[in-house]
This record gives sequence, C-alpha cells and structure tokens, in this order.
Amino acid sequence: MHIAILFGGSSFEHEISIVSAITMKKVLKNTQISYIFVSGEREFYFIDTQKINAKLFSSGEYKKSKVLSLKQGGFFVDTLFGTKSIDCEVVLNLIHGRDGEDGKIASMMEFYHVPFISPRMEASALSYNKLYTKFLAESLGVKSVAYEHLCARDERKISMDYPVIIKPVRLGSSIGVSIVREASGLDYALDVAFEFDSDVIIEPFIEGVKEYNQAGCYTNDWELSIVEEPQKEEFLDFEKKYMDFSRDSQVLSADISEALVLKIQENFKKLYDPLFRGSIMRCDFFVVDGEVLLNEINPIPGSMANYLFEDFEGMLERLIPHLSHESGISIDYQYIHSIQSAKGKA
Amino acid sequence: MHIAILFGGSSFEHEISIVSAITMKKVLKNTQISYIFVSGEREFYFIDTQKINAKLFSSGEYKKSKVLSLKQGGFFVDTLFGTKSIDCEVVLNLIHGRDGEDGKIASMMEFYHVPFISPRMEASALSYNKLYTKFLAESLGVKSVAYEHLCARDERKISMDYPVIIKPVRLGSSIGVSIVREASGLDYALDVAFEFDSDVIIEPFIEGVKEYNQAGCYTNDWELSIVEEPQKEEFLDFEKKYMDFSRDSQVLSADISEALVLKIQENFKKLYDPLFRGSIMRCDFFVVDGEVLLNEINPIPGSMANYLFEDFEGMLERLIPHLSHESGISIDYQYIHSIQSAKGKA
Repeated sequence: MHIAILFGGSSFEHEISIVSAITMKKVLKNTQISYIFVSGEREFYFIDTQKINAKLFSSGEYKKSKVLSLKQGGFFVDTLFGTKSIDCEVVLNLIHGRDGEDGKIASMMEFYHVPFISPRMEASALSYNKLYTKFLAESLGVKSVAYEHLCARDERKISMDYPVIIKPVRLGSSIGVSIVREASGLDYALDVAFEFDSDVIIEPFIEGVKEYNQAGCYTNDWELSIVEEPQKEEFLDFEKKYMDFSRDSQVLSADISEALVLKIQENFKKLYDPLFRGSIMRCDFFVVDGEVLLNEINPIPGSMANYLFEDFEGMLERLIPHLSHESGISIDYQYIHSIQSAKGKA
Repeated sequence: MHIAILFGGSSFEHEISIVSAITMKKVLKNTQISYIFVSGEREFYFIDTQKINAKLFSSGEYKKSKVLSLKQGGFFVDTLFGTKSIDCEVVLNLIHGRDGEDGKIASMMEFYHVPFISPRMEASALSYNKLYTKFLAESLGVKSVAYEHLCARDERKISMDYPVIIKPVRLGSSIGVSIVREASGLDYALDVAFEFDSDVIIEPFIEGVKEYNQAGCYTNDWELSIVEEPQKEEFLDFEKKYMDFSRDSQVLSADISEALVLKIQENFKKLYDPLFRGSIMRCDFFVVDGEVLLNEINPIPGSMANYLFEDFEGMLERLIPHLSHESGISIDYQYIHSIQSAKGKA
C-alpha cells in the first residue's frame, strides 16, 4: 500500500495535524508513505519521509522541500524533464480543522480526480458546523445534547439552566469555548465566542458526564472500533494534547454493558452511512440517564483514532477499493447543437 | 471594473452555463470581462472575449485556447517568460449545478485566496441539497413547501396525498424529477429519481400554484430586485430554456400587493443573510392560501437573474468591495516549540 498523507493547512489545528501525521509513520509499519505538507500560506511541499519531525516545520526548514502543484490526476513536482506526478494509490486527508474538515480539501480532491480518504464535501460542510450537525443528527433519528443557537445580532437571552457551555459553531479544539456557571458570566463568554464566529451554540454543561468514543468506517462491511471512555479533563494542557494526538497503541474497551455498546454502535452507523462513506470518523457520545446522546462528530480524528482499532493498517487497505467516486457526466453539447440547428447555423 | 467569468464545469448544466456566460457580455457593457472556461474534464481554458460564442464549445475549438493553472493568488497562463497571472479584480462563479453550486469552486477560490462572487462553501453545500435547504429554511423561520424524504434503502411508502412531485435532492434543472398523479406511478418515478441520487424528496404538486421570484444581494445595504411572476410550464423545451438563460432585458414586476412583496422580501433576507453574503442569489417562492413558502434557492441563477434588476452592472460593482474573505490564521508553532522545550530539545 502506498498512501500520500496530506497534513498542516491554514487551520488553528495546523500543529496537531503535524503531530497526527508523524504518528502515522509509527502506525503504518508496512505502508509506503509520501508526505505532502500544506503550509499556513497553503503551498504544497513534498516532505522527505525519512526526515519528517516536528522541528522541520517549527524551524521553517520545510521551505527547502520541493513545492508541489495540484492538477488533474494528482500532485506534481517539477523535474529537469518536465513535471512528474507523486505516485500513490490514495491521499489520506489528515488536516484537522479548517481546510481539512470544512470541505476544501475534499472539494479539491474531487475536482482533480484524486482518490482520497476523508469525509466528502457535503459531510464536511455539515459536520464542521456544530449547528448543522444538530440538524443532521435530528434528521437521522440520532439524539444529541440539547442546545440553543445565537447569532451575533440576536438578543443575548437563553432559556437553559446554568451551568452551560458556549461553543462557536465552526471551530474545533476548544477555541472560543467557555463554561458559564451563572447568568452574570454569559455576556463575557459570548463576547469571546463571537470573536471567533458569527454563530454559537449553547448546551447544558453536565459535570462528570460519561463520555464514550466510537470510531469506524464501512469497507465492504462495517469495521467498528472498540468503545473508549476517554480520560476527561476540562481543558487539556499542551503536553496532554500532544499525548492525545500522538497515541499509537491500542487502548482498552470501556467497561460498559454489551447493550450500551450496541446502542452506541447503532447511533454511529446511522450518522456514518451513507454520508460519511470514504472516511474513518470518530463520534463522541454522552450517556445521560441511560440515553445515548451525540456530543460531536470528529470527521478527521487525531491520529485517525488508530489506537481504537485492532488492525488499523489492514482496515485502511480494505477501505481503498471501496472509496466513492463522483459519477461522470458526459458533455455532448446536444443542447447547443439543437439551438444551432434551430437557428440554421449548424 | 474587470471581472473574470468562470463557466462550464463538470455539470449537467454545463451548456446552459455557457449560455449564461455569453449573455453577461451583453449585460455588462462597461466591464472588462475575461472568460475562464472549465471543460467537462475540468481543465481551465482562457477564452478570447471577442470570439466567444456557443459553437466555440460545441465544436471543440475551445481546446486551441490557452490552458490556465490555478495557484495561490489566481489563474496563471504560461508565457515565454514564465507564468503570468490573469488580471482581474474578482471572479464571478457562473457554473450552474455541480462544481459551481455544490461548493467546489467556492472551496478552491478560498483556498487559493482569489476574491469571488458566489455563495461560499457552507451556503453551497446546504443549498445544493434540497433536503438540507429544508433544514436551513426551518432553522431561519422561513416556511417551505411540505415534504417527505426517502433514501434508496427506505420502504417506498409516503403519507402525502397525490399528485406529488419527486425530486432527487442534489440535481438542478429538472433532471430525475417526475410528477406522480396516483399511487401506481410512485414506484417508477422513484426508480428514475434513484438513478440520479441516493436521496429524494417528495412534495405535494400544486396545480397552477402562484410562483414569485426574488433576487438580490447585500452590498453596503440591501439591493433587492423586482419580484417576478415567471411564466410557468411544466417542462421547458430546449428553445424556451435557452431563452430563459439568455435573458438580458429587464422584466415587469408581478402584479401583487405591496404587502405580499414585503413578505417575499422578508423571507429572502432571512435566507440570504449572513450565509449567502458574497453571492447574488434568486429564491423562488410559492404563495398558497396567502402564505409565502420557499420552493427553491438558486444560488447561481441563470444569467445571474440580471433581468430582474434595474442596474445589474452597478450592483456588481458595489458588491466587489463587500465580499467576505476568510480570516487569517497565524501559524507560529508555539505549541511545537513548547513541546520541544519540555523535552529539552529546543
């Protein structure tokens, strides 16, 4: 298997995408990897797989790498004898946040006919926006955490009990997110959130809620990970976050009933199929009073959630032949020909 | 004003995009236009504005034009002395249907920092899918025509009274659309629709319903068109459709009350702002029992709905300084630097 890993991007999660990408080298032991870095300025660089490490980027040394151009059929590098395409079977989109998860990379891969592992454009647009994720879940019969929605120009009034959590609808990580414990704190938290986005959602903040993560994909059959109960901390400091995105060994299943696992899996499948086909995603669920509620969809999870799978590399290989491709549209100019004949100009 | 018009695309509406683009030459009398054609294979061609006509494309002669490449900052052409960018203030996305309206072009313009007139990515993804358009309208307090949704794998049962109209959720024009007058016709109509899409919506078909079109945009203030009552025919033949996409002179306002105009405008504004900022869109409304219902959003209407405006060219010029741009994200590698220091490697 030969895959190109696309990482970086003009995203608040640029740096953790680098961590995710480097982690893949440890995970995909039998895979030939080509690394394609998207700089903050959105130039493509071809990174030497032997030399990749975090400092290559923080030092700016990556700028000495060859620049690639994206054209019909793939990524190309200039050589003495013209341009040459980067060999690979498939591109793995590992750009977290903007560019990767908002649908830009998916759009470009489809436009240029490059096979890719990632949520497609529509799935990206819906899951990148926490409000649209609510619509999606609702339409699929998946319950999610209760919410209210405010635009920047709306009156700042909520009807939910405190404490609440305020989230800008479009950003990942914890950017612009606040927990508000009483009404007096609402205004400031909204100021912060509206710095980042025109829209926010407000959800009840449930102290000590049970959270469970489920990842998976559909190859020629369902391939579901174990269910993990992640360690919870209100905010992760940088070192914990680094650990989180560089996880590369399998973790233990949550100690929960078979019935609960089935409920979580059922919700995952409803969300995944068919919209997220072609991706390996992770969904984070809360369990409140025995009810499974969607908390969020991670369409491109940290280090691809490899640590939740027994055979991540094998799954990736099985996914490649089942990636969806846009249908072809034949352009035959029949309509213009008809007009021309009607006008006697044909 | 100097604009580049992007047209064509890998779309069922490729040919009518050509008609729309050519019409713009008649409408934008005081504008310098550069034409960029997207072929069915999705190569970019630089088309001579003096020579543009429908036959240039149907004959394949366009292939003699210069090929352009899309890179950071715009479209580039190879010259004897390296590459040279195509001068223009802004790109007008005039690709109807796939590529143009589904978010691909918007994604690419944003990625490559090219200023453009068109719905942005999120607006595209939502309005390209008729089911998501329903979610959107609902969330904004805009009433739309009643509907039911079926996936290909669902049981083929509807609870609505006949006649109904069946529409694939993702295609424009009338592709895959059928009117079904009684239950016995449902199965065949669904077969046809599922040929084109995994999802369909079913709406009541209301014989002789009153339809009104409203176009507009937000520059530094609202610029709303007149309201038109379009001529209705169940299906347009090719000549009528040609006429429809090549309209270039202003039409008359519908003969309706001021109160109804205001209701239509109010609904248009709710749908447009802020999601569709940067675009000139047209919304088609039905009026049933005095109630205004959204029928569809045309995010890139035929010939940009120029015929609904008194001063289309002036509006385009006023829109350019008010186009939204993505916010910059500064990548400072602070996080990787911290990790490196913590590890004693900095």
